[in-house]
Amino acid sequence: MGENGEIIWRVSALTDEAAEHLVGPASKIDSFTLRNLNETFTVRRRQFDSFGVDHLLGILKSEAGPTFRVRFATPTAFKSKGRYVIMPDVRLVFQNLLMRYNQAYAGDCEIDPETLEYISEHVSITSYNLCSRYFPRTMGKADKIPAFAGTLTLRAFGPQSLQGLVAMLLAFGEASGVGVKTSMGMGGMQLLKGPSNRKGGTVGR
Amino acid sequence: MGENGEIIWRVSALTDEAAEHLVGPASKIDSFTLRNLNETFTVRRRQFDSFGVDHLLGILKSEAGPTFRVRFATPTAFKSKGRYVIMPDVRLVFQNLLMRYNQAYAGDCEIDPETLEYISEHVSITSYNLCSRYFPRTMGKADKIPAFAGTLTLRAFGPQSLQGLVAMLLAFGEASGVGVKTSMGMGGMQLLKGPSNRKGGTVGR
Repeated sequence: MGENGEIIWRVSALTDEAAEHLVGPASKIDSFTLRNLNETFTVRRRQFDSFGVDHLLGILKSEAGPTFRVRFATPTAFKSKGRYVIMPDVRLVFQNLLMRYNQAYAGDCEIDPETLEYISEHVSITSYNLCSRYFPRTMGKADKIPAFAGTLTLRAFGPQSLQGLVAMLLAFGEASGVGVKTSMGMGGMQLLKGPSNRKGGTVGR
Repeated sequence: MGENGEIIWRVSALTDEAAEHLVGPASKIDSFTLRNLNETFTVRRRQFDSFGVDHLLGILKSEAGPTFRVRFATPTAFKSKGRYVIMPDVRLVFQNLLMRYNQAYAGDCEIDPETLEYISEHVSITSYNLCSRYFPRTMGKADKIPAFAGTLTLRAFGPQSLQGLVAMLLAFGEASGVGVKTSMGMGGMQLLKGPSNRKGGTVGR
Protein backbone atom coordinates (compact mmCIF):
# COMPACT_ATOMS: atom_id res chain seq x y z
CA MET A 1 0.00 0.00 0.00
CA GLY A 2 1.49 3.33 -1.03
CA GLU A 3 1.20 6.60 0.87
CA ASN A 4 -1.81 7.73 -1.20
CA GLY A 5 -3.78 4.52 -0.75
CA GLU A 6 -2.90 3.05 -4.14
CA ILE A 7 -1.66 -0.51 -4.35
CA ILE A 8 2.03 -0.93 -5.11
CA TRP A 9 3.18 -4.30 -6.38
CA ARG A 10 6.91 -4.53 -6.05
CA VAL A 11 8.91 -7.22 -7.80
CA SER A 12 12.60 -7.41 -6.88
CA ALA A 13 15.39 -9.49 -8.32
CA LEU A 14 18.99 -9.63 -7.15
CA THR A 15 20.60 -11.08 -10.27
CA ASP A 16 20.25 -10.42 -14.02
CA GLU A 17 19.02 -13.97 -14.49
CA ALA A 18 16.29 -13.60 -11.87
CA ALA A 19 15.31 -10.22 -13.34
CA GLU A 20 14.94 -11.76 -16.78
CA HIS A 21 12.63 -14.49 -15.52
CA LEU A 22 10.71 -12.43 -12.97
CA VAL A 23 10.75 -8.69 -13.63
CA GLY A 24 10.53 -9.17 -17.41
CA PRO A 25 7.24 -11.11 -17.43
CA ALA A 26 5.79 -9.11 -14.51
CA SER A 27 6.39 -5.81 -16.34
CA LYS A 28 4.18 -6.97 -19.22
CA ILE A 29 1.10 -7.44 -17.03
CA ASP A 30 -1.69 -4.91 -17.71
CA SER A 31 -4.19 -6.15 -15.16
CA PHE A 32 -4.41 -8.91 -12.58
CA THR A 33 -7.03 -10.53 -10.37
CA LEU A 34 -6.46 -11.24 -6.70
CA ARG A 35 -8.08 -14.64 -6.22
CA ASN A 36 -8.96 -14.23 -2.54
CA LEU A 37 -10.50 -10.80 -3.04
CA ASN A 38 -11.97 -11.82 -6.42
CA GLU A 39 -11.15 -8.32 -7.64
CA THR A 40 -9.30 -7.19 -10.75
CA PHE A 41 -6.74 -4.38 -10.68
CA THR A 42 -5.46 -2.41 -13.67
CA VAL A 43 -1.84 -1.32 -13.82
CA ARG A 44 -1.70 2.49 -13.95
CA ARG A 45 2.01 3.12 -13.78
CA ARG A 46 5.18 1.09 -14.17
CA GLN A 47 8.52 2.02 -12.69
CA PHE A 48 11.73 0.19 -13.39
CA ASP A 49 14.82 0.66 -11.22
CA SER A 50 18.08 -1.13 -11.71
CA PHE A 51 21.48 -0.79 -10.11
CA GLY A 52 24.79 -2.63 -10.12
CA VAL A 53 27.29 -3.30 -7.37
CA ASP A 54 29.22 -0.14 -8.43
CA HIS A 55 26.19 1.93 -7.36
CA LEU A 56 26.31 0.29 -3.91
CA LEU A 57 30.07 0.82 -3.67
CA GLY A 58 29.45 4.50 -4.45
CA ILE A 59 27.05 4.73 -1.51
CA LEU A 60 29.67 3.03 0.70
CA LYS A 61 32.02 5.96 0.06
CA SER A 62 29.37 8.70 0.16
CA GLU A 63 28.67 11.22 2.91
CA ALA A 64 25.45 9.52 3.90
CA GLY A 65 25.01 11.33 7.21
CA PRO A 66 24.23 9.60 10.49
CA THR A 67 20.42 9.35 10.28
CA PHE A 68 18.34 6.84 8.32
CA ARG A 69 14.57 6.50 8.17
CA VAL A 70 13.36 3.03 7.27
CA ARG A 71 9.83 1.88 6.48
CA PHE A 72 8.89 -1.77 6.79
CA ALA A 73 6.17 -1.71 4.14
CA THR A 74 5.18 -5.38 4.36
CA PRO A 75 5.14 -7.63 7.46
CA THR A 76 8.72 -8.25 8.57
CA ALA A 77 10.08 -10.79 11.03
CA PHE A 78 13.36 -12.33 12.11
CA LYS A 79 14.15 -15.72 13.53
CA SER A 80 16.44 -15.98 16.51
CA LYS A 81 17.01 -19.09 18.65
CA GLY A 82 14.18 -20.86 16.85
CA ARG A 83 11.65 -18.14 17.65
CA TYR A 84 10.13 -15.39 15.56
CA VAL A 85 11.22 -11.94 16.68
CA ILE A 86 8.48 -9.37 16.10
CA MET A 87 10.39 -6.27 17.15
CA PRO A 88 13.21 -4.91 15.03
CA ASP A 89 16.66 -5.22 16.49
CA VAL A 90 19.76 -3.55 15.02
CA ARG A 91 21.85 -6.71 15.22
CA LEU A 92 19.23 -8.92 13.54
CA VAL A 93 18.53 -6.39 10.76
CA PHE A 94 22.19 -5.94 9.82
CA GLN A 95 23.14 -9.57 10.34
CA ASN A 96 20.46 -10.45 7.81
CA LEU A 97 21.46 -7.70 5.36
CA LEU A 98 25.18 -8.57 5.57
CA MET A 99 24.34 -12.23 4.95
CA ARG A 100 22.19 -11.39 1.94
CA TYR A 101 24.79 -8.98 0.55
CA ASN A 102 27.54 -11.58 0.82
CA GLN A 103 25.32 -14.21 -0.73
CA ALA A 104 24.58 -11.93 -3.68
CA TYR A 105 28.10 -10.63 -4.32
CA ALA A 106 30.55 -13.02 -2.63
CA GLY A 107 28.71 -16.26 -3.19
CA ASP A 108 28.48 -17.30 0.46
CA CYS A 109 26.43 -16.30 3.50
CA GLU A 110 29.34 -15.96 5.89
CA ILE A 111 29.69 -12.62 7.58
CA ASP A 112 32.49 -11.05 9.53
CA PRO A 113 31.44 -11.17 13.22
CA GLU A 114 33.56 -8.10 14.04
CA THR A 115 31.75 -5.99 11.45
CA LEU A 116 28.38 -7.05 12.83
CA GLU A 117 29.57 -6.40 16.39
CA TYR A 118 30.76 -2.92 15.42
CA ILE A 119 27.46 -2.09 13.71
CA SER A 120 25.30 -3.34 16.56
CA GLU A 121 27.34 -1.37 19.09
CA HIS A 122 27.34 1.87 17.10
CA VAL A 123 23.92 1.97 15.47
CA SER A 124 20.80 2.67 17.53
CA ILE A 125 17.08 2.89 16.92
CA THR A 126 16.38 6.46 18.03
CA SER A 127 12.66 6.52 17.27
CA TYR A 128 9.93 4.33 15.83
CA ASN A 129 6.26 3.84 15.13
CA LEU A 130 5.59 0.13 14.74
CA CYS A 131 2.92 -2.45 15.25
CA SER A 132 2.66 -6.19 15.00
CA ARG A 133 1.21 -7.76 11.87
CA TYR A 134 0.38 -11.35 11.05
CA PHE A 135 1.33 -12.72 7.66
CA PRO A 136 -0.72 -15.64 6.26
CA ARG A 137 1.58 -18.59 5.63
CA THR A 138 -0.94 -20.03 3.17
CA MET A 139 -3.57 -17.80 1.61
CA GLY A 140 -6.89 -18.23 3.35
CA LYS A 141 -5.47 -20.42 6.13
CA ALA A 142 -5.44 -19.40 9.79
CA ASP A 143 -1.77 -20.30 10.26
CA LYS A 144 0.05 -16.96 10.40
CA ILE A 145 3.62 -15.76 10.83
CA PRO A 146 4.01 -13.12 13.57
CA ALA A 147 5.71 -10.00 12.21
CA PHE A 148 5.80 -6.21 12.40
CA ALA A 149 5.38 -3.19 10.12
CA GLY A 150 5.91 0.57 10.39
CA THR A 151 8.75 3.07 10.43
CA LEU A 152 11.88 3.62 12.45
CA THR A 153 14.85 5.96 12.55
CA LEU A 154 18.38 4.65 12.90
CA ARG A 155 21.38 6.67 13.91
CA ALA A 156 24.96 5.60 13.24
CA PHE A 157 27.26 6.92 15.96
CA GLY A 158 30.55 6.60 14.17
CA PRO A 159 32.84 7.70 11.32
CA GLN A 160 31.93 8.09 7.63
CA SER A 161 32.96 4.48 6.97
CA LEU A 162 30.23 3.24 9.34
CA GLN A 163 27.62 5.63 7.94
CA GLY A 164 28.50 4.59 4.38
CA LEU A 165 28.27 0.89 5.25
CA VAL A 166 24.86 1.35 6.90
CA ALA A 167 23.65 3.42 3.93
CA MET A 168 24.85 0.78 1.48
CA LEU A 169 23.30 -2.15 3.36
CA LEU A 170 19.96 -0.34 3.67
CA ALA A 171 20.00 0.57 -0.05
CA PHE A 172 20.73 -3.08 -0.83
CA GLY A 173 17.90 -4.06 1.55
CA GLU A 174 15.42 -2.07 -0.53
CA ALA A 175 16.07 -4.57 -3.33
CA SER A 176 16.66 -7.72 -1.27
CA GLY A 177 14.15 -7.31 1.51
CA VAL A 178 15.07 -8.30 5.05
CA GLY A 179 14.25 -11.08 7.49
CA VAL A 180 12.25 -14.26 6.87
CA LYS A 181 10.12 -15.27 3.86
CA THR A 182 11.12 -12.37 1.59
CA SER A 183 10.30 -14.54 -1.44
CA MET A 184 6.70 -14.62 -0.21
CA GLY A 185 6.55 -10.83 0.08
CA MET A 186 7.57 -10.39 3.70
CA GLY A 187 10.32 -7.97 4.75
CA GLY A 188 9.75 -5.33 2.07
CA MET A 189 11.72 -2.31 3.24
CA GLN A 190 12.11 1.23 1.99
CA LEU A 191 14.56 4.02 2.81
CA LEU A 192 12.58 7.21 3.43
CA LYS A 193 13.98 10.57 2.39
CA GLY A 194 13.34 14.03 3.76
CA PRO A 195 12.44 15.27 7.23
CA SER A 196 10.94 12.79 9.64
CA ASN A 197 7.32 13.03 10.74
CA ARG A 198 6.45 13.78 14.33
CA LYS A 199 5.43 10.27 15.27
CA GLY A 200 8.45 8.05 15.07
CA GLY A 201 10.55 11.05 14.08
CA THR A 202 14.14 11.80 14.88
CA VAL A 203 14.64 13.51 18.18
CA GLY A 204 17.52 14.09 20.51
CA ARG A 205 20.23 15.15 18.08
CA MET B 1 -4.84 11.59 28.12
CA GLY B 2 -7.90 9.37 28.39
CA GLU B 3 -9.60 7.53 25.54
CA ASN B 4 -12.16 10.34 25.05
CA GLY B 5 -9.58 13.13 24.90
CA GLU B 6 -10.08 14.29 28.48
CA ILE B 7 -7.04 14.82 30.67
CA ILE B 8 -6.49 12.24 33.40
CA TRP B 9 -4.22 13.19 36.27
CA ARG B 10 -3.25 10.07 38.11
CA VAL B 11 -1.63 10.22 41.54
CA SER B 12 -0.38 6.90 42.89
CA ALA B 13 1.01 6.00 46.29
CA LEU B 14 2.35 2.63 47.40
CA THR B 15 2.12 3.11 51.18
CA ASP B 16 -0.51 4.56 53.53
CA GLU B 17 1.97 7.24 54.59
CA ALA B 18 2.64 8.32 50.99
CA ALA B 19 -1.11 8.28 50.28
CA GLU B 20 -1.76 10.55 53.25
CA HIS B 21 0.80 13.11 52.11
CA LEU B 22 0.17 12.87 48.37
CA VAL B 23 -3.28 11.52 47.44
CA GLY B 24 -4.97 13.34 50.36
CA PRO B 25 -3.93 16.89 49.35
CA ALA B 26 -4.23 16.12 45.60
CA SER B 27 -7.84 14.95 46.02
CA LYS B 28 -8.80 18.36 47.45
CA ILE B 29 -7.75 20.27 44.33
CA ASP B 30 -10.67 21.77 42.37
CA SER B 31 -8.68 23.38 39.56
CA PHE B 32 -5.07 23.74 38.58
CA THR B 33 -2.96 25.75 36.14
CA LEU B 34 -0.29 24.16 33.97
CA ARG B 35 2.50 26.72 34.07
CA ASN B 36 4.03 25.88 30.68
CA LEU B 37 0.67 25.93 28.90
CA ASN B 38 -0.56 28.85 31.02
CA GLU B 39 -3.98 27.20 31.02
CA THR B 40 -6.29 26.37 33.92
CA PHE B 41 -8.16 23.06 34.18
CA THR B 42 -11.19 22.33 36.33
CA VAL B 43 -11.56 18.92 37.97
CA ARG B 44 -14.74 17.26 36.69
CA ARG B 45 -14.55 13.88 38.32
CA ARG B 46 -12.56 12.25 41.09
CA GLN B 47 -11.96 8.56 41.42
CA PHE B 48 -10.31 6.94 44.40
CA ASP B 49 -9.01 3.36 44.27
CA SER B 50 -7.27 1.61 47.08
CA PHE B 51 -6.12 -1.96 47.59
CA GLY B 52 -4.07 -3.93 50.08
CA VAL B 53 -1.61 -6.76 49.62
CA ASP B 54 -4.49 -9.28 50.24
CA HIS B 55 -6.11 -8.03 47.00
CA LEU B 56 -2.88 -8.77 45.11
CA LEU B 57 -2.56 -12.20 46.74
CA GLY B 58 -6.14 -12.91 45.61
CA ILE B 59 -5.13 -12.14 42.01
CA LEU B 60 -2.10 -14.44 42.43
CA LYS B 61 -4.49 -17.36 43.05
CA SER B 62 -7.11 -16.33 40.47
CA GLU B 63 -7.85 -17.85 37.08
CA ALA B 64 -6.41 -14.85 35.26
CA GLY B 65 -6.19 -16.52 31.85
CA PRO B 66 -3.11 -16.41 29.62
CA THR B 67 -3.65 -13.08 27.83
CA PHE B 68 -2.98 -9.58 29.13
CA ARG B 69 -3.39 -6.27 27.36
CA VAL B 70 -1.22 -3.49 28.70
CA ARG B 71 -1.27 0.20 27.84
CA PHE B 72 1.75 2.38 28.48
CA ALA B 73 -0.18 5.61 28.98
CA THR B 74 2.81 7.86 29.69
CA PRO B 75 6.33 7.64 28.21
CA THR B 76 8.02 4.52 29.55
CA ALA B 77 11.67 3.51 29.41
CA PHE B 78 14.06 1.03 30.97
CA LYS B 79 17.76 1.26 31.63
CA SER B 80 19.97 -1.68 30.74
CA LYS B 81 23.77 -1.69 30.64
CA GLY B 82 23.80 2.09 31.13
CA ARG B 83 21.58 2.73 28.12
CA TYR B 84 17.92 3.65 27.81
CA VAL B 85 15.86 0.89 26.24
CA ILE B 86 12.99 2.30 24.21
CA MET B 87 11.31 -0.95 23.26
CA PRO B 88 9.50 -3.03 25.85
CA ASP B 89 11.12 -6.32 26.74
CA VAL B 90 9.44 -9.01 28.86
CA ARG B 91 12.50 -9.49 31.07
CA LEU B 92 12.99 -5.78 31.76
CA VAL B 93 9.29 -5.19 32.49
CA PHE B 94 8.99 -8.03 35.00
CA GLN B 95 12.43 -7.50 36.53
CA ASN B 96 11.35 -3.97 37.31
CA LEU B 97 7.90 -4.99 38.62
CA LEU B 98 9.36 -7.78 40.81
CA MET B 99 11.90 -5.33 42.21
CA ARG B 100 9.22 -2.76 43.00
CA TYR B 101 6.93 -5.37 44.52
CA ASN B 102 9.67 -6.67 46.80
CA GLN B 103 10.64 -3.14 47.76
CA ALA B 104 7.03 -2.34 48.71
CA TYR B 105 6.22 -5.55 50.59
CA ALA B 106 9.50 -7.22 51.56
CA GLY B 107 11.58 -4.13 52.23
CA ASP B 108 14.35 -4.91 49.76
CA CYS B 109 14.85 -4.79 46.01
CA GLU B 110 16.34 -8.26 45.64
CA ILE B 111 14.54 -10.57 43.28
CA ASP B 112 14.76 -14.30 42.72
CA PRO B 113 16.68 -14.79 39.45
CA GLU B 114 14.94 -18.12 38.79
CA THR B 115 11.49 -16.52 38.95
CA LEU B 116 12.58 -13.83 36.51
CA GLU B 117 14.14 -16.43 34.23
CA TYR B 118 10.94 -18.50 34.26
CA ILE B 119 8.78 -15.46 33.45
CA SER B 120 11.02 -14.25 30.63
CA GLU B 121 11.09 -17.71 29.09
CA HIS B 122 7.34 -18.32 29.32
CA VAL B 123 5.81 -14.90 28.66
CA SER B 124 5.83 -13.40 25.16
CA ILE B 125 4.72 -10.18 23.53
CA THR B 126 2.25 -11.52 20.96
CA SER B 127 1.19 -8.18 19.49
CA TYR B 128 1.77 -4.47 19.94
CA ASN B 129 1.20 -0.96 18.68
CA LEU B 130 3.95 1.27 20.01
CA CYS B 131 5.92 4.35 19.19
CA SER B 132 8.83 6.21 20.66
CA ARG B 133 8.19 9.24 22.83
CA TYR B 134 10.57 11.74 24.36
CA PHE B 135 10.03 12.83 27.95
CA PRO B 136 11.35 16.26 29.01
CA ARG B 137 13.82 15.83 31.87
CA THR B 138 13.28 19.44 32.90
CA MET B 139 10.16 21.29 31.78
CA GLY B 140 10.93 23.54 28.86
CA LYS B 141 14.47 22.20 28.41
CA ALA B 142 15.60 20.36 25.28
CA ASP B 143 17.19 17.52 27.25
CA LYS B 144 14.81 14.59 26.84
CA ILE B 145 14.61 10.97 27.99
CA PRO B 146 13.98 8.51 25.14
CA ALA B 147 10.95 6.33 25.86
CA PHE B 148 7.93 4.61 24.32
CA ALA B 149 4.14 4.58 24.65
CA GLY B 150 1.28 2.49 23.29
CA THR B 151 -0.30 -0.90 23.83
CA LEU B 152 0.85 -4.49 23.81
CA THR B 153 -0.55 -7.95 24.43
CA LEU B 154 1.32 -10.45 26.57
CA ARG B 155 0.68 -14.17 26.65
CA ALA B 156 1.78 -16.41 29.49
CA PHE B 157 2.54 -19.89 28.19
CA GLY B 158 2.36 -21.82 31.44
CA PRO B 159 0.29 -23.06 34.39
CA GLN B 160 -2.17 -21.05 36.51
CA SER B 161 0.63 -20.17 38.95
CA LEU B 162 2.48 -18.28 36.17
CA GLN B 163 -0.67 -16.60 34.88
CA GLY B 164 -1.60 -15.53 38.43
CA LEU B 165 1.88 -14.15 39.08
CA VAL B 166 1.85 -12.16 35.82
CA ALA B 167 -1.67 -10.87 36.60
CA MET B 168 -0.62 -9.82 40.10
CA LEU B 169 2.55 -8.05 38.98
CA LEU B 170 0.69 -6.16 36.25
CA ALA B 171 -2.08 -5.15 38.71
CA PHE B 172 0.64 -3.94 41.09
CA GLY B 173 2.27 -2.12 38.16
CA GLU B 174 -0.90 -0.08 37.62
CA ALA B 175 -0.23 1.48 41.02
CA SER B 176 3.57 1.51 41.01
CA GLY B 177 4.32 2.34 37.40
CA VAL B 178 7.20 0.64 35.63
CA GLY B 179 10.68 1.54 34.42
CA VAL B 180 12.63 4.74 35.03
CA LYS B 181 11.51 8.07 36.55
CA THR B 182 8.04 6.93 37.66
CA SER B 183 8.07 9.65 40.32
CA MET B 184 8.21 12.19 37.47
CA GLY B 185 5.21 10.62 35.74
CA MET B 186 6.96 8.22 33.40
CA GLY B 187 5.98 4.54 33.18
CA GLY B 188 2.26 4.94 33.85
CA MET B 189 0.73 1.61 32.87
CA GLN B 190 -2.80 0.32 32.67
CA LEU B 191 -4.26 -3.18 32.30
CA LEU B 192 -6.88 -3.10 29.55
CA LYS B 193 -9.99 -5.23 29.76
CA GLY B 194 -12.22 -6.65 27.05
CA PRO B 195 -11.52 -7.69 23.48
CA SER B 196 -8.42 -6.35 21.82
CA ASN B 197 -8.58 -3.84 18.99
CA ARG B 198 -7.37 -4.75 15.50
CA LYS B 199 -4.12 -2.86 15.65
CA GLY B 200 -1.90 -4.38 18.24
CA GLY B 201 -4.61 -6.93 18.98
CA THR B 202 -4.27 -10.52 20.01
CA VAL B 203 -3.88 -12.86 17.09
CA GLY B 204 -2.70 -16.41 16.65
CA ARG B 205 -4.46 -18.13 19.54
